[in-house]
Amino acid sequence: MVEGDEIQPLIEAVHEEFVPYLGEGKVADYIPELAKADPRNLGIAVATVDGRVYSTGDDAEPFTIQSISKVFALTLALGKVGDDLWRRVGREPSGTPFDSIIQLEHEHGIPRNPFINAGALVVSDILLSGYQPRETIGQILEFVRFIANDETIAIDPVVARSETEHGYRNRALANFMLGFGNIEHAVDLVLGVYFHQCAIAMDCRQLAKAGLFLATGGRVTHRDTGVVSTLRARRINALMLTCGQYDGSGDFAFRVGLPSKSGVSGGLLAIVPGIASVAVWSPALNKQGNSLVGTLVLERLAERAGWSIF
Amino acid sequence: MVEGDEIQPLIEAVHEEFVPYLGEGKVADYIPELAKADPRNLGIAVATVDGRVYSTGDDAEPFTIQSISKVFALTLALGKVGDDLWRRVGREPSGTPFDSIIQLEHEHGIPRNPFINAGALVVSDILLSGYQPRETIGQILEFVRFIANDETIAIDPVVARSETEHGYRNRALANFMLGFGNIEHAVDLVLGVYFHQCAIAMDCRQLAKAGLFLATGGRVTHRDTGVVSTLRARRINALMLTCGQYDGSGDFAFRVGLPSKSGVSGGLLAIVPGIASVAVWSPALNKQGNSLVGTLVLERLAERAGWSIF
Amino acid sequence: MVEGDEIQPLIEAVHEEFVPYLGEGKVADYIPELAKADPRNLGIAVATVDGRVYSTGDDAEPFTIQSISKVFALTLALGKVGDDLWRRVGREPSGTPFDSIIQLEHEHGIPRNPFINAGALVVSDILLSGYQPRETIGQILEFVRFIANDETIAIDPVVARSETEHGYRNRALANFMLGFGNIEHAVDLVLGVYFHQCAIAMDCRQLAKAGLFLATGGRVTHRDTGVVSTLRARRINALMLTCGQYDGSGDFAFRVGLPSKSGVSGGLLAIVPGIASVAVWSPALNKQGNSLVGTLVLERLAERAGWSIF
Amino acid sequence: MVEGDEIQPLIEAVHEEFVPYLGEGKVADYIPELAKADPRNLGIAVATVDGRVYSTGDDAEPFTIQSISKVFALTLALGKVGDDLWRRVGREPSGTPFDSIIQLEHEHGIPRNPFINAGALVVSDILLSGYQPRETIGQILEFVRFIANDETIAIDPVVARSETEHGYRNRALANFMLGFGNIEHAVDLVLGVYFHQCAIAMDCRQLAKAGLFLATGGRVTHRDTGVVSTLRARRINALMLTCGQYDGSGDFAFRVGLPSKSGVSGGLLAIVPGIASVAVWSPALNKQGNSLVGTLVLERLAERAGWSIF
Repeated sequence: MVEGDEIQPLIEAVHEEFVPYLGEGKVADYIPELAKADPRNLGIAVATVDGRVYSTGDDAEPFTIQSISKVFALTLALGKVGDDLWRRVGREPSGTPFDSIIQLEHEHGIPRNPFINAGALVVSDILLSGYQPRETIGQILEFVRFIANDETIAIDPVVARSETEHGYRNRALANFMLGFGNIEHAVDLVLGVYFHQCAIAMDCRQLAKAGLFLATGGRVTHRDTGVVSTLRARRINALMLTCGQYDGSGDFAFRVGLPSKSGVSGGLLAIVPGIASVAVWSPALNKQGNSLVGTLVLERLAERAGWSIF
Repeated sequence: MVEGDEIQPLIEAVHEEFVPYLGEGKVADYIPELAKADPRNLGIAVATVDGRVYSTGDDAEPFTIQSISKVFALTLALGKVGDDLWRRVGREPSGTPFDSIIQLEHEHGIPRNPFINAGALVVSDILLSGYQPRETIGQILEFVRFIANDETIAIDPVVARSETEHGYRNRALANFMLGFGNIEHAVDLVLGVYFHQCAIAMDCRQLAKAGLFLATGGRVTHRDTGVVSTLRARRINALMLTCGQYDGSGDFAFRVGLPSKSGVSGGLLAIVPGIASVAVWSPALNKQGNSLVGTLVLERLAERAGWSIF
Repeated sequence: MVEGDEIQPLIEAVHEEFVPYLGEGKVADYIPELAKADPRNLGIAVATVDGRVYSTGDDAEPFTIQSISKVFALTLALGKVGDDLWRRVGREPSGTPFDSIIQLEHEHGIPRNPFINAGALVVSDILLSGYQPRETIGQILEFVRFIANDETIAIDPVVARSETEHGYRNRALANFMLGFGNIEHAVDLVLGVYFHQCAIAMDCRQLAKAGLFLATGGRVTHRDTGVVSTLRARRINALMLTCGQYDGSGDFAFRVGLPSKSGVSGGLLAIVPGIASVAVWSPALNKQGNSLVGTLVLERLAERAGWSIF
Repeated sequence: MVEGDEIQPLIEAVHEEFVPYLGEGKVADYIPELAKADPRNLGIAVATVDGRVYSTGDDAEPFTIQSISKVFALTLALGKVGDDLWRRVGREPSGTPFDSIIQLEHEHGIPRNPFINAGALVVSDILLSGYQPRETIGQILEFVRFIANDETIAIDPVVARSETEHGYRNRALANFMLGFGNIEHAVDLVLGVYFHQCAIAMDCRQLAKAGLFLATGGRVTHRDTGVVSTLRARRINALMLTCGQYDGSGDFAFRVGLPSKSGVSGGLLAIVPGIASVAVWSPALNKQGNSLVGTLVLERLAERAGWSIF
């Protein structure tokens, strides 16, 4: 298995190998702000459990993390309400697209898992309990800054606003669950929290550091403290593996073999338990809506480094 | 992490802990032969990568492995046709019960994965290519004997016949796929192979040994040879994790954290990569159709031994 | 076939026959205002093509017509945009409940027919084109007053407001279709129109008169003028027959044999082409959400009068 | 409304109008025998309740009636078991294609109506009760000969055999229902009956005469006797209207306005209650699998003759 100083040359080699593929795929265009992304960007960062960060390419270019934020929001919500969360959200892969509403009707308003949009909206609703939307958004941002050990991380207000103006499907999901009693706050507030968490902007180095607590059994390396218990870190990893890539999770587990979460802006976060947290970013997407080159990079990196949980 | 000589007392302690729960749940009764099982049975066996086997309880009582055989049939079929297999079977969790036909209609006769019944029938069809049913069944049995290093393993002909007489749903699935051109042999032959592979009878010790090649990166420990490549072993593990417990796979990954496959007779096979293969058997099932006590035993064993891929 | 003066004694006899059943079933309670209805009410009215109205029971008690309004709104919208309407709404029975969203996802935001909620919302959206919500609501009310020849018909503002406060599912449907581009106005405006049309209050005599143009081949009997062409009247009747009772339309056609539309307040409008328009009202509902006693009354009335289109 | 001697020139005019369209659409090719049909054929026949038959075009060319036979088999089965039949088959439009299996899984093996394939197989199963397959097939044929008053009607054995060899989907449906206990005889016997009833061959004149009892309130005109009660005739018409064109029934009711049943060989039977029975045949199909030119002919004929139940 590749470790330590071997990582930097490895990620540079993989970066070089996949630069020719940049431009394939299609940048997300459902909101104008995302459509502006340059499909030729490619950033890679690896944060290892000893606290070092290796990176290359467009590793300092910030992007909004979108659905990757669901991992951090879930972690925060589990800290707040513990396993009670699972009375309102399932833990099974959905077998349907990320924004499907079909499963919700069949299962009476209980989302299949916290990483499809419906599940993430319930998580937002849980985080709102006892707080104003502004406070809730502040808590999420503070948490991400803490685990990434970086106070400069911020929310992109233009993207947040753009999402709010176009988020009809999410509005449908939230109202639908409200009808089943599985949303407790006003839909506009829930969506406000959700769209702002999606608009948290980071570069690859920051994102790799933010995910590192999932590779260390729940500890942050920059302070001698745990964010979550080892059992909870493992369980979040398990959810990322079975549900983190929506209806492409099985194939991703088969090909890459690591827990991961994708975002529609082209970001990918993958966890190598006990070893490292990996962030890859390239905006053009494949047919499943995940970063096309990012997925190929992760697959090659995992293969060459010998990283697999299986 | 628990290793070596600590394993025997651990499995005995877990066995003792769960004996009081025996009798809960419900033995499968869709075929008369399975309904005869004694719900008070509980066997546990752990085969470690150094070739040793620890076991306790009803560890020498044979049972038909049913759907656990899908793991071995898939391994054999991948050896025969390689990745061409994936043109006829998917690699995604189904989000529906093990014998659902709905997904097949939506996805034009391509089963979502090789561990739901439809997928296993396609695997049987692939194994039939170029052989008579009797030969194909013989090959599967030989393969299981080889990986378990035990020539005494046999097929239970009464169970095989009983399945044949009641397998209407599987017959529907096969005819449905035949209509889409995804079954190439006569339905009766495909079902014959499938029902016989399900009727392979083993005890927990034999089953743990049979699964060990998935914990060793593809090697059998009793001979210095590989059954499959390390990459393929990892990929089969990945499929077991995302699809091995049907529509309960996400929850199982969350709670137990190990690749596994269940069978309707109450057997469970779980893999601890690099460490061990674990077989548990207890016939009474939970609502998802998996061994009720067996699942609890695996969860406790994994927790106490510190075994998790995450 | 029963005609003219035989009608009054017939409806009185049927009324008497079913009074003992009043109290069975369950009044709709999804909004507080509807829950206040008295389940012991039963009104019957028959308006014949010669301009006479026969009635009995609680025939002068007003109730909000709810989904029966979909027939009038559709008629108005067809007058406005003609067959272009069918580019945005289908003409097939849905095979799912009235407020299901599943079909909408499968068919990309095109409702199956104008009588399920999603279809009625598109019709509201069409009626809004070029008008303010207040004007649109006014047009619908004016149209209903005209066809019923009764200027006293009004909207119940308390029910309209109650619907607005609880209509999460309709809000979900509208946002969902907006995401597919099949809603053109702001969701709140569309819902405002829809909830107000549902809150139009009439008694059985008024409702029977309002529906009469569908029995006369499109003409209003109180003036010598046509509301719609004979072909269009027939086609609206056809839609009522195949889709007017949601997922119970087939059974209703089988048992009663007349085009009809039901409302959740317990109203029923049935058309006997060339003969009469029939309104029945009884608030307690059967499992399909249609008036329990009202359906029985219509079935018996049609049978005894020899009224059937088949 | 067009009647008597006006009918012959009308059908000739409509025939002439649509001859230029012959050749559009696509002949069914799922079994070799059907693929041999000449897409340029067009036959029209109208049998009136006074016992006369008008016809034109290829009105003496026999074709297998395929799914139109479901109407006759249902009539026969209702005569045998009465309303008990409805415990095993529903009366609702399906909202899915004619051979879909999805609804069957959702509704536990109860077909939505007797005109989708699954429902017709249950009807075959009912007809088999107490008889050998050969006898059952004989009874169906005798019944069709009786209502058509034509002893020369026969089954096309080549088509029957061809269906048997390719009917995988029907075999899947039957086995699926067998698993739910809604098929009582061996699948091969049920399919045998079904495929033979589909292979009954008639020309348009014979088919129009066979359907006439549904226009007369259940009486056959060639003898002074009833086949079914008036109520039952009406109810069969109601089922034809809501379910007779599969998932195109709503649109057909909207455009044509008559109860009807289509067959994959390009035949159409439509009923004008109290007036006539109409048979049209043209083998090339539209996208819904119904006769392309036949549907247009029926629509024009109904419009010009003023025939509509609405």
